[in-house]
Amino acid sequence: MNIKITGTGSYIPDTIEKNDAFHQHQFLNTDGTVINHPNEVIIEKFKAITGIAERRYAKPHLNSSDLGFFAAERAINDAGINPETLDYIIVAHNFGDVKHNTIQSDVIPSLAARIKHSLRIKNPKCVAYDILFGCPGWVEGVIQAKAFIKSGMAKRCLVIGSETLSRVVDKHDRDAMIFSDGAGATIVEATDEPGGILAHETASFTYDEAYFLYYGNSNNQSLDKDTRYIKMDGRKIYEFALTNVPKAMQSCLDASGVDITQVKKIFIHQANEKMDEAILKRFYRLYRTEIPEHIMPMSIQTLGNSSVATVPTLFDLVRNNKLENHSLSKGDVIIFASVGAGMHINAIVYKY
Amino acid sequence: MNIKITGTGSYIPDTIEKNDAFHQHQFLNTDGTVINHPNEVIIEKFKAITGIAERRYAKPHLNSSDLGFFAAERAINDAGINPETLDYIIVAHNFGDVKHNTIQSDVIPSLAARIKHSLRIKNPKCVAYDILFGCPGWVEGVIQAKAFIKSGMAKRCLVIGSETLSRVVDKHDRDAMIFSDGAGATIVEATDEPGGILAHETASFTYDEAYFLYYGNSNNQSLDKDTRYIKMDGRKIYEFALTNVPKAMQSCLDASGVDITQVKKIFIHQANEKMDEAILKRFYRLYRTEIPEHIMPMSIQTLGNSSVATVPTLFDLVRNNKLENHSLSKGDVIIFASVGAGMHINAIVYKY
Repeated sequence: MNIKITGTGSYIPDTIEKNDAFHQHQFLNTDGTVINHPNEVIIEKFKAITGIAERRYAKPHLNSSDLGFFAAERAINDAGINPETLDYIIVAHNFGDVKHNTIQSDVIPSLAARIKHSLRIKNPKCVAYDILFGCPGWVEGVIQAKAFIKSGMAKRCLVIGSETLSRVVDKHDRDAMIFSDGAGATIVEATDEPGGILAHETASFTYDEAYFLYYGNSNNQSLDKDTRYIKMDGRKIYEFALTNVPKAMQSCLDASGVDITQVKKIFIHQANEKMDEAILKRFYRLYRTEIPEHIMPMSIQTLGNSSVATVPTLFDLVRNNKLENHSLSKGDVIIFASVGAGMHINAIVYKY
Repeated sequence: MNIKITGTGSYIPDTIEKNDAFHQHQFLNTDGTVINHPNEVIIEKFKAITGIAERRYAKPHLNSSDLGFFAAERAINDAGINPETLDYIIVAHNFGDVKHNTIQSDVIPSLAARIKHSLRIKNPKCVAYDILFGCPGWVEGVIQAKAFIKSGMAKRCLVIGSETLSRVVDKHDRDAMIFSDGAGATIVEATDEPGGILAHETASFTYDEAYFLYYGNSNNQSLDKDTRYIKMDGRKIYEFALTNVPKAMQSCLDASGVDITQVKKIFIHQANEKMDEAILKRFYRLYRTEIPEHIMPMSIQTLGNSSVATVPTLFDLVRNNKLENHSLSKGDVIIFASVGAGMHINAIVYKY
């Protein structure tokens, strides 16, 4: 028995928020002082590092569970399955449903229950739960689906990553420009076809790293101290990711028994273009191998960082030939890898 | 190989909130109208139905992840294990860390990452994640630990349920009196000893039931519409639970192959005394069997409904002979069962 992804879907919100939209923002340092550069310079520098030129925001009337539902519908249709045959619906996110212009996360009921409700699935044996695992939540959801299938507790799972980070950003923080909204979904199931998940790797670094990403106050110190926003220590995260993500990918690839030269595509969490390129470089350096051309599809330039949604969305785009120079053929070995709040890292080596 | 609980721990907050404390509350109907009874009558009626005379509230400086950490430490000590040997830390909750007198849920990083950080565990192979599954979250966490162990992905897991519902109640809603704070934890591991988990059952009813428990406005219609609280349709939940919980317990017990007469204790989620008694009655009626004496330990009278924490706390109390007329002996067959937001139901038949 193998475990394969038999359908994918994604939901990319219509609203395009270009970098220009941030020209009127009052960006502040973390200590509340004004940044001594014009916004044009701040935004250009931001773009040079992260690669982000624009990002997507969900329409005000839509919430994270709506985005996840849209992506799920597409994955179900793509796989051509009857949704009543799903054994699990696993939804990864970080902030739940945050209504536009409000500050509370709503996870009662959980997003998985909401999405199952919207999908009009009746079967009570389809277990719907949410997982909180930072940005690597969707990859971890696929690993959990593997556990259920391997243990005999499931045959077919729907794994969704959905997030509306635009609702939790601090407008006075340059990092606000990184974050985006979106959702990706996949059907993961037991099959007799060759290929599928060859190996996985997960690591949780919490000893020193637990609070590298956190919920904190606005850089504008005159704002309410009881209102918090997504915050990160970008420099620490960058160094942490560069040290640990390539290692996790290596240990996963080695466990799969696949040679580095056989890897056709690497889908890394879209957090920062420069960081992803540096991770790729270090990964190939571990094998003393040249980086092949067109190995790493990227969407961050136009889609930003939508947390749990980046990897399944990117995979869906490539699978449907929607990214130039990127396509997949049966038998291709690919790697999924992610890193985020926790700090957690994970990777999957997969034969398409 | 069997899968057994080798250690338990719980954290019951010190602050006792007696029913008297609600005498000064202004209770309102859901439409905002005043309830035409004195508070003494409302509270007496409440106690007669739910059985709750007092509940526990966490001290203002403590959050849900602190409570979970305290319970986890005790479970680790009870099992006598080195925490560095844990493969998974699974934390069930519903609202994350809600600081006293604030309205935002904080789950960045996830509670599992926070608790692992507090436990000072260095091993990155110990995967720490949160599960959102309503009140049945701890039971479902144990079922997920079973999946990891059965699939060969883990040998030893820490499963925690922690919640501070006192931080999300609407003071103008009589249901505020139900909710409580607390945490329970268990070590679940692969073992050659006889017994352990014999069968499990999970069901997610979302078609009509998804919003029986939800995040909604205060009954006081003059309060901010953007601030929401835990809300429930008590009557619908009661009927739903009575119909479906006994059936889930039955199908789990039948799957285990154990005869009803062999069941020694039933640990049901402490939601409402009358409801739990009615569930028990229906369950035994399904087997046309008399209800044995002292079959169902209860803690709701003094601990209230602390969501995910009720079942592991109750189990920890009985295991340590802290509830009159209740004790456990090696080989005893017991049932864990829960029901809550989603709506989800689950059960485990376990040989002690």
